[in-house]
Amino acid sequence: MFPYEIDDKPKEECGIFGLFAPGLDVARTTYFSLYALQHRGQEGAGIVTSDGQVAHIHKGTGLVAQVFNEENLSHLKGHMAVGHTRYSTTGSSVMRNAQPYLIETLHGPLAVAHNGNLTNAPSLRNNLLQRGIGLSSSSDTEIIVHLLSGAGGDWMSRIRTFMAQAEGAYSLILLTRDGIFGVRDPWGFRPLVLGKIDEGYVLASESCAFSTSGAEIVREIMPGEIVRLDEEGYSVVQGAHPQARAFCTFEHIYFARPDSVLDGKSVHHVRQALGRQLAREAPADADIVVPVPDSGTPHAIGYAQESGLPYTEGLIKNRYIGRTFIQPTDRLRRASVAMKFNPLAENLVGQRVIIVDDSIVRGNTSGPLVQMLRDGGAAEVHMRVACPPIKFPCFMGVDMALQTELIAATKSLEEIRQHINADSLAYLSVKGMMHAIRESDGYCNACFTGDYPINVQLQLQDKAQFQQVFGIG
Amino acid sequence: MFPYEIDDKPKEECGIFGLFAPGLDVARTTYFSLYALQHRGQEGAGIVTSDGQVAHIHKGTGLVAQVFNEENLSHLKGHMAVGHTRYSTTGSSVMRNAQPYLIETLHGPLAVAHNGNLTNAPSLRNNLLQRGIGLSSSSDTEIIVHLLSGAGGDWMSRIRTFMAQAEGAYSLILLTRDGIFGVRDPWGFRPLVLGKIDEGYVLASESCAFSTSGAEIVREIMPGEIVRLDEEGYSVVQGAHPQARAFCTFEHIYFARPDSVLDGKSVHHVRQALGRQLAREAPADADIVVPVPDSGTPHAIGYAQESGLPYTEGLIKNRYIGRTFIQPTDRLRRASVAMKFNPLAENLVGQRVIIVDDSIVRGNTSGPLVQMLRDGGAAEVHMRVACPPIKFPCFMGVDMALQTELIAATKSLEEIRQHINADSLAYLSVKGMMHAIRESDGYCNACFTGDYPINVQLQLQDKAQFQQVFGIG
Amino acid sequence: MFPYEIDDKPKEECGIFGLFAPGLDVARTTYFSLYALQHRGQEGAGIVTSDGQVAHIHKGTGLVAQVFNEENLSHLKGHMAVGHTRYSTTGSSVMRNAQPYLIETLHGPLAVAHNGNLTNAPSLRNNLLQRGIGLSSSSDTEIIVHLLSGAGGDWMSRIRTFMAQAEGAYSLILLTRDGIFGVRDPWGFRPLVLGKIDEGYVLASESCAFSTSGAEIVREIMPGEIVRLDEEGYSVVQGAHPQARAFCTFEHIYFARPDSVLDGKSVHHVRQALGRQLAREAPADADIVVPVPDSGTPHAIGYAQESGLPYTEGLIKNRYIGRTFIQPTDRLRRASVAMKFNPLAENLVGQRVIIVDDSIVRGNTSGPLVQMLRDGGAAEVHMRVACPPIKFPCFMGVDMALQTELIAATKSLEEIRQHINADSLAYLSVKGMMHAIRESDGYCNACFTGDYPINVQLQLQDKAQFQQVFGIG
Amino acid sequence: MFPYEIDDKPKEECGIFGLFAPGLDVARTTYFSLYALQHRGQEGAGIVTSDGQVAHIHKGTGLVAQVFNEENLSHLKGHMAVGHTRYSTTGSSVMRNAQPYLIETLHGPLAVAHNGNLTNAPSLRNNLLQRGIGLSSSSDTEIIVHLLSGAGGDWMSRIRTFMAQAEGAYSLILLTRDGIFGVRDPWGFRPLVLGKIDEGYVLASESCAFSTSGAEIVREIMPGEIVRLDEEGYSVVQGAHPQARAFCTFEHIYFARPDSVLDGKSVHHVRQALGRQLAREAPADADIVVPVPDSGTPHAIGYAQESGLPYTEGLIKNRYIGRTFIQPTDRLRRASVAMKFNPLAENLVGQRVIIVDDSIVRGNTSGPLVQMLRDGGAAEVHMRVACPPIKFPCFMGVDMALQTELIAATKSLEEIRQHINADSLAYLSVKGMMHAIRESDGYCNACFTGDYPINVQLQLQDKAQFQQVFGIG
Repeated sequence: MFPYEIDDKPKEECGIFGLFAPGLDVARTTYFSLYALQHRGQEGAGIVTSDGQVAHIHKGTGLVAQVFNEENLSHLKGHMAVGHTRYSTTGSSVMRNAQPYLIETLHGPLAVAHNGNLTNAPSLRNNLLQRGIGLSSSSDTEIIVHLLSGAGGDWMSRIRTFMAQAEGAYSLILLTRDGIFGVRDPWGFRPLVLGKIDEGYVLASESCAFSTSGAEIVREIMPGEIVRLDEEGYSVVQGAHPQARAFCTFEHIYFARPDSVLDGKSVHHVRQALGRQLAREAPADADIVVPVPDSGTPHAIGYAQESGLPYTEGLIKNRYIGRTFIQPTDRLRRASVAMKFNPLAENLVGQRVIIVDDSIVRGNTSGPLVQMLRDGGAAEVHMRVACPPIKFPCFMGVDMALQTELIAATKSLEEIRQHINADSLAYLSVKGMMHAIRESDGYCNACFTGDYPINVQLQLQDKAQFQQVFGIG
Repeated sequence: MFPYEIDDKPKEECGIFGLFAPGLDVARTTYFSLYALQHRGQEGAGIVTSDGQVAHIHKGTGLVAQVFNEENLSHLKGHMAVGHTRYSTTGSSVMRNAQPYLIETLHGPLAVAHNGNLTNAPSLRNNLLQRGIGLSSSSDTEIIVHLLSGAGGDWMSRIRTFMAQAEGAYSLILLTRDGIFGVRDPWGFRPLVLGKIDEGYVLASESCAFSTSGAEIVREIMPGEIVRLDEEGYSVVQGAHPQARAFCTFEHIYFARPDSVLDGKSVHHVRQALGRQLAREAPADADIVVPVPDSGTPHAIGYAQESGLPYTEGLIKNRYIGRTFIQPTDRLRRASVAMKFNPLAENLVGQRVIIVDDSIVRGNTSGPLVQMLRDGGAAEVHMRVACPPIKFPCFMGVDMALQTELIAATKSLEEIRQHINADSLAYLSVKGMMHAIRESDGYCNACFTGDYPINVQLQLQDKAQFQQVFGIG
Repeated sequence: MFPYEIDDKPKEECGIFGLFAPGLDVARTTYFSLYALQHRGQEGAGIVTSDGQVAHIHKGTGLVAQVFNEENLSHLKGHMAVGHTRYSTTGSSVMRNAQPYLIETLHGPLAVAHNGNLTNAPSLRNNLLQRGIGLSSSSDTEIIVHLLSGAGGDWMSRIRTFMAQAEGAYSLILLTRDGIFGVRDPWGFRPLVLGKIDEGYVLASESCAFSTSGAEIVREIMPGEIVRLDEEGYSVVQGAHPQARAFCTFEHIYFARPDSVLDGKSVHHVRQALGRQLAREAPADADIVVPVPDSGTPHAIGYAQESGLPYTEGLIKNRYIGRTFIQPTDRLRRASVAMKFNPLAENLVGQRVIIVDDSIVRGNTSGPLVQMLRDGGAAEVHMRVACPPIKFPCFMGVDMALQTELIAATKSLEEIRQHINADSLAYLSVKGMMHAIRESDGYCNACFTGDYPINVQLQLQDKAQFQQVFGIG
Repeated sequence: MFPYEIDDKPKEECGIFGLFAPGLDVARTTYFSLYALQHRGQEGAGIVTSDGQVAHIHKGTGLVAQVFNEENLSHLKGHMAVGHTRYSTTGSSVMRNAQPYLIETLHGPLAVAHNGNLTNAPSLRNNLLQRGIGLSSSSDTEIIVHLLSGAGGDWMSRIRTFMAQAEGAYSLILLTRDGIFGVRDPWGFRPLVLGKIDEGYVLASESCAFSTSGAEIVREIMPGEIVRLDEEGYSVVQGAHPQARAFCTFEHIYFARPDSVLDGKSVHHVRQALGRQLAREAPADADIVVPVPDSGTPHAIGYAQESGLPYTEGLIKNRYIGRTFIQPTDRLRRASVAMKFNPLAENLVGQRVIIVDDSIVRGNTSGPLVQMLRDGGAAEVHMRVACPPIKFPCFMGVDMALQTELIAATKSLEEIRQHINADSLAYLSVKGMMHAIRESDGYCNACFTGDYPINVQLQLQDKAQFQQVFGIG
């Protein structure tokens, strides 16, 4: 499909936000915070608010600014809220899987906003079906909702019960009559951070969400922790025994906004460090360093700094690029990448160019970009990639591609170089990547190494089977 | 609210349709059949199709012709289908309560289309919540879905288990891997009829739905029966012991399309008979008989036939009337009813007019209509109503009004006459109504008599409480 | 195309309304008045208001209730207004040809609402093009606007200049800084009527538009007259010498709402008289008289009254019929007419039926209706049509069909009878029709007789040529 | 109004494109080319195609990718096309002023796409009105259309006649039966460039539009020239005597895409040169140079290169920023700028920061940005602006602001510095700017100097007056 050819990026499934703040317009605050999390999902958005008794919900498809207006925001009353931004692959299922998911339970309203992917979803689904519970969607969130509402005790113990059963990646924000709960899986795959505002506390996928409300970072939620926001402030308990930590490296490489702080590290800083390490590992005899804007820019700046070569803009990005469903004719086949990028010939003519990208997934844009640089006059083009080759699909909440689509899963380094027609090609090593991040372990590098922190064999098969049941929905 | 002032009609909650017909385009057939059931709900429509393994769904808000197009119909594949048209009070909840409701269960897909109202929904909801099942909507259909998926045995025994628990009005059409099931509650509140086409069998709320597919009526489903459509044809079992029969009289008076056959009787014929009986019970010394078009037309024809007075059109109805949300100013206050009706002065001048309507609910349009006839030149206006005074709300699937809004619940006959400024006013008696229908019992006349066939005390309180939980949703 | 197969009616091009009423909410009053003119055009609507200096406009596609809301009405300020409802054949050109048409001129704003068709449009267009004026649409209204703005003198003399050049059907309402003008062509093809309200005067295509504002009829505008509404009240002048009068007979037969008064005659009364005359001219040995609802109902009532046969409902019309673009399969081929009508078998079984329709255009629904009556049990079916055979296209503002599509243009009476499979078929005679209308001349019967009151040869050729220039636009 | 507070940029009115290319899918090529001109207008888009006889048009509101789809593109047939992207201030007038403007003339279809502003529009309008031509919009384009269609001779001579009357900025692309014409005003205010593809020739506002079709730059159209594209290829004539050249400096500073070539100069290169000159003129004792992304980035790179200070990212821009109409509460007042930018504290802490922006218009975002840098830890903040103070409104096609809104028109340098709370503030000098562009004259610097190349006194007054006539329409 054409719309995806002009992009070679993995997709994060969601951004989540929640707060407990009596006296504040919590819906409005959530709106502005979701705005800052828009990069984690552009296909849908939703907000649930409550005073603990009555819950209000509005969700829809599109960007945050398209889903909400003064009229529907005005109905979202209460002193606590959860919000969600969502990426979704198929149009027709968008509304069925939209979040937050709100239900009535014996213990009052329950709203769930979820970021991640449960690797044992098939067996959890099956357990629910065995209990006679019918499932109306393919989403993990519906499973989570039923596991939480079906467990005994108070909300805290219900969450613990859920954590004892669930495997995989989940950062959750829950709205209940007892307050807002933040939950992070025992591996810590996906981020979750706590902040403070005058009227109370907030939780978000990334600290960049705090910018529009002026919240200050308190701390990141640790793997297996449950944090509760209520009239008392916030309290943290260990909800499940932490597993070997497995934070998603790709959050640092590409997903997170550069102004966020993840795992105590500035994302922008990590990206520059990745570029520097790449320069050390894979230097090239060249004249200039050029980024693939915008995501490759900090990596390229780091590469340039370390290599001593000048950092130069060589590709202009069309700021108004959006999805197009118009097919280019053969005559316009070059239009696909040209719609997004254009070379700056004056900076390129006669130059030996090092082009730095943050990652290569399917490899469908790298070749046209190399050609574009050559058309712009580059004498040589050396591609440098600020992460290792992606050879394995993600089962922890990222939509990368089917394994058969991953170019590094099927081609050798030299074959890829020929495929993209670069004079040289080098990726960052896994070891070098971790060195740049200044960690030796605690990160999930499964997409590079195939070493999945947890068992995921049934996943793909089940996904296919499940889609059989629900058809086109 | 203005849009409702120009209408004084009760609202039926839904129309349902289903069929099992290998070799037929079941989605298209369902589409045309829902078209003929559009009078039972104009706010939303949906179709689920399946081959028993994979289910496909499309539903949306608006008229059938607005919800479906060739593109979305083309995805609805299979050899069986259920469809639904829906009336709904509040815009924002339309999609959440839209039908058919489709879920995955341990036993394959389950789709439910429901017409009715469960009078013990509060306790059924509570049972589900006690079992730890969270509920995502205020609809009975979600309750039904969970009760069916949570029961044991095959689909037939699950339906029996449901019927043993449920109280109130329900005509259901279910799609399962075992075929299509039609279910009618043991009281027989709402209609359900079986038909035959070349490729198989169909089920519908009313026989008028058969017109567009050329189906022939086989028989009406009896109270407490379950009918199953599959490769073998159809089979009927008694799913629950029938209760004292309580078919909704209002289906005959107003809801059903006049070309339908209900309880073995032509609806149009019953309406003319109601008019005749009204003429016998409440004659008037007048010159002409005029209907309130279109629903009062057959009753007025019957009245004219019995009375020997000439039947005359005295009010013209705007065929393009739709919902308007524009408020008339005081200056335009008469516009409200004038948007819908206009008098035919030439037929009215100097005449003593008998105006016949099928029913009066709130009484907000009768007064303006009487005045309109007087403005048109009528010398006298005698209002005759082809059913008894409506004094009690319906709990079996009809949205009439709150009891406090029912004019006959708070005013005497003489007070109503004065309120609408008629020269005389008479309603049909309950006894006369049943005489016209040619039945002495077996009908639910609770809205006239307050004798509810089943216990419904908790209903209203619960509805209010429930809406508290879900807010504006 | 399927959507048109279920309707065999000619289409009126527009309804127009205007008023001068300081102190009134003129936009709101126009809104409610357009509501009552909705039968003259359902494809688009527009309102222009002004205080004489500043003009405000809002127009859009769809029904009046869909185009306007409180927000856009609130911008339409001033003490005078013109409004328009429009029927249009092609979706894409709707907005380009939408009315009213508003321009700035040397003499202030000019808004034009037009009902009719200029038969010398080709030469008028050519004159304008010769003057170097480019035309941005295919509409007569743009021609009128340019002829008015290009003429000299005050608005009254500009209108006279226009009338001296224009040929064909035009009822116009103009908004200028000098007030509202109503203009009717010298033949009087299309209706235009003046009314009085407390705050001033109103003009409308039909008097039914007065119902929602409570206006009283003052008089109809005569052929060639110009009426002006301003602070002084109203004044009438003869703008052009009247031609041999040629009021459209079809306004009486089908277009106008039955509660309107046209040419001093109640439309409903004329329709009953047409039915009576039809009974005299074309009796049948039958048992009952059945209308094709709703437009054939008054004609059938008249037929029944004159013939002494009982008037009976034999076809039920689906009140929710709308445009559908879903194609029925061969299996569903009967669905087409069945979507709109259904027989009432109990009234038909064994009966010899006279079915009365107001007119037959293409003849595509009569056959299925006859068959439907037979399927419903009718022993014989005698079709009676309350106007003469339509053999010629209209060039005065009605979209009937191409001549080749008119069944009576290509088939004899007996061929039509066989085509629709009726036991007998009879049309009203032209002479009988005029007798029923109680006029011997003064009416345009060109669609029946081919005697066009004015020269129209160039019309069709030009229309085709013109569409060549503008393509699909 | 809030949506504009988060942006302090002038708005270009349009981008234009045209081509003559038999054998090519000209609509599709225009679509992809408009995509690359999206930065010149995001409010509307349109395409007209033709074979010389029949013209086809589609236009609508929104981004190019929103306006067009395969279905509407498929109707746009022919071998030549013009396209347009548009910025517009008011929603309701978007469609009325949408371009291209297509009319029928005596000489076949005429479509006009216009970029610019006629400074003598008032007198041209008046001439047309005096000639009795009514005007249906406030757009220059309608004036141009009437002047062209009203002139004598062939299209070339009509264009010359137009040029003899018109004053101000206009780059036009016309579609006629004689081919495509490109016209540039005698001052050369707005750019227009000719390119070559295999099948013919193309014209565009900027050369960046050539990227998606693979067109090669042939030459820029010179002031006063007319270029004609037809079967013969292209031909150029001098349509009007060139005036003292006055190319818009702001095209180089901000409007044009950096990969375009304007006046023979790479835009990106000019922007870096402006930054270098700024560094020479206004150095600061600081540690790092930070851009206001994205438009200030090349200027900042140039400043850093010249100053020898390190170039660093200090502000992260939200890539998903769009228009929002949600008002922040007082509590969220900082959200406004924070929705668009966020500081990178790690790069800022303790640093003396030079922040480089391309321009300051109203000055409403500079203060919050300075504060954001301070909040991020900057020790000092020195604002440098890569153009001179904007003190005068533009009348040549740019929507900057009313003069009273221009901060430099009402405040001194020191007052502005205090207003934005910077430690120092400096603008580039006019002389330095021209030095960087390597031109001493030939540019319009009226917004900086007030020296308008042509008389524009009546403009503003007329605009206000005109809007009076058309109201909100």
